[in-house]
Amino acid sequence: MLRGVLANKEQYQPGLSIDCVIFGFHDNQLKVLLIKTKYNEQWALPGGFVSVDESIDEGAVNVLHGRTGLKGIFLRQFATFGQVNRNPTTFSDSVLQFYGIDKEQATWYRSRFVTIGYYALVDFLQAVPQPEGNNEIVEWIDCNAVPDLILDHKEIFDKALDTLRMELNLVPVGYNLLPEKFTIPELQKLYETILGRKLDRRNFLRKITSIGILTKLDEKKSNVAHKAPNLYSFDKERYEEVLKIGLHQGW
Amino acid sequence: MLRGVLANKEQYQPGLSIDCVIFGFHDNQLKVLLIKTKYNEQWALPGGFVSVDESIDEGAVNVLHGRTGLKGIFLRQFATFGQVNRNPTTFSDSVLQFYGIDKEQATWYRSRFVTIGYYALVDFLQAVPQPEGNNEIVEWIDCNAVPDLILDHKEIFDKALDTLRMELNLVPVGYNLLPEKFTIPELQKLYETILGRKLDRRNFLRKITSIGILTKLDEKKSNVAHKAPNLYSFDKERYEEVLKIGLHQGW
Repeated sequence: MLRGVLANKEQYQPGLSIDCVIFGFHDNQLKVLLIKTKYNEQWALPGGFVSVDESIDEGAVNVLHGRTGLKGIFLRQFATFGQVNRNPTTFSDSVLQFYGIDKEQATWYRSRFVTIGYYALVDFLQAVPQPEGNNEIVEWIDCNAVPDLILDHKEIFDKALDTLRMELNLVPVGYNLLPEKFTIPELQKLYETILGRKLDRRNFLRKITSIGILTKLDEKKSNVAHKAPNLYSFDKERYEEVLKIGLHQGW
Repeated sequence: MLRGVLANKEQYQPGLSIDCVIFGFHDNQLKVLLIKTKYNEQWALPGGFVSVDESIDEGAVNVLHGRTGLKGIFLRQFATFGQVNRNPTTFSDSVLQFYGIDKEQATWYRSRFVTIGYYALVDFLQAVPQPEGNNEIVEWIDCNAVPDLILDHKEIFDKALDTLRMELNLVPVGYNLLPEKFTIPELQKLYETILGRKLDRRNFLRKITSIGILTKLDEKKSNVAHKAPNLYSFDKERYEEVLKIGLHQGW
């Protein structure tokens, strides 16, 4: 569950952890990467501690890389969770022994942790879940069927999904998630899958084209019975620009 | 600078602090609450540590209340800052003694701190800056003339201002900042002051009225030469509702 479970605790920032909500999209499905040990039923977000010599952002990148093999993926910090009793500080010796945690480490696990949440959106076919040791299970699980999670991880997941949906109003998404050439209905399906609701076709077309990140190609989708839709690609330069300055819809 | 400077450090979460960017608005001016000691030139954001028995949100509320006397003000967590060297861990004994920090406390101040940023937007005439002790100066300073700040506080301030501006696209602002009855040009001036740029009058009128948070009153602004503009008030119920669900401009 936590990067560095058996490592020397003095190399980590005390009382601080990172949890990553890694969303995977492919073929109109939105999933989240969850892990659990063979020993218990509850799932958890992949997470870890922060080394004394790495920034919190670097810590998040290392968690993501460790669990998916992915590098260079955009990770966004979205909130820090710090309720007093968010992690149990009353673990009994026997519970900790069950997980192979010795007495000295027990003090560490019994301290209060504040956790920083990061999220990423990746193509789940490109990310290979990487268990840490033999007793861990790492899986992509449908966002509509998230099981019981440990601690406040459900709250962290919900907040990440809310943030992702809200950010659709602020930055473009789609690059790395759609094939290089795609149709407007395919792009709309991506937005609908993230938002969890249907969108009006004409409104979507108007809004998405007004951003100016799409290049209309002189090609039509093949293998389509009739009225083949046009193919588009992202104007990468303009896309990056809008990522930086934001959509600035609004005032 | 930090709440609880002379208190027992064991009552605080290790390596964790809170910094508050408290924006003040009144009469078309946007200011930020900054503090400094008599002993140095640099200003700082008001901040503090997190007690072991309070949540991070409660910690932020306590910092705000301690510095402004204000309670019940909406504080929003916006980012956590965790560069490795964001605070100097190499304070010399003499520097710390200068600030009245003894040897035992020195270990605390020399540890690495990750800080959680919160911001608030208040009417600065209602907030009375409250210095902690005789050697502290607390002042409202124009957001366009922020002086040299300690550590990474300038970065924290900039990020808070960016977030505030971005949030104008997501939630309504104005309640508690404008008089109970106001004109559309007054409301527009609030948005322009926060955004730091002019807005188109007709666009603004169309967008702000489409949100449905305004009640047009059967009254006109008095003391105006001719063509007195209409007065409005916020529909508090609808305002609260939009605060919760967001403006949902976009998709």
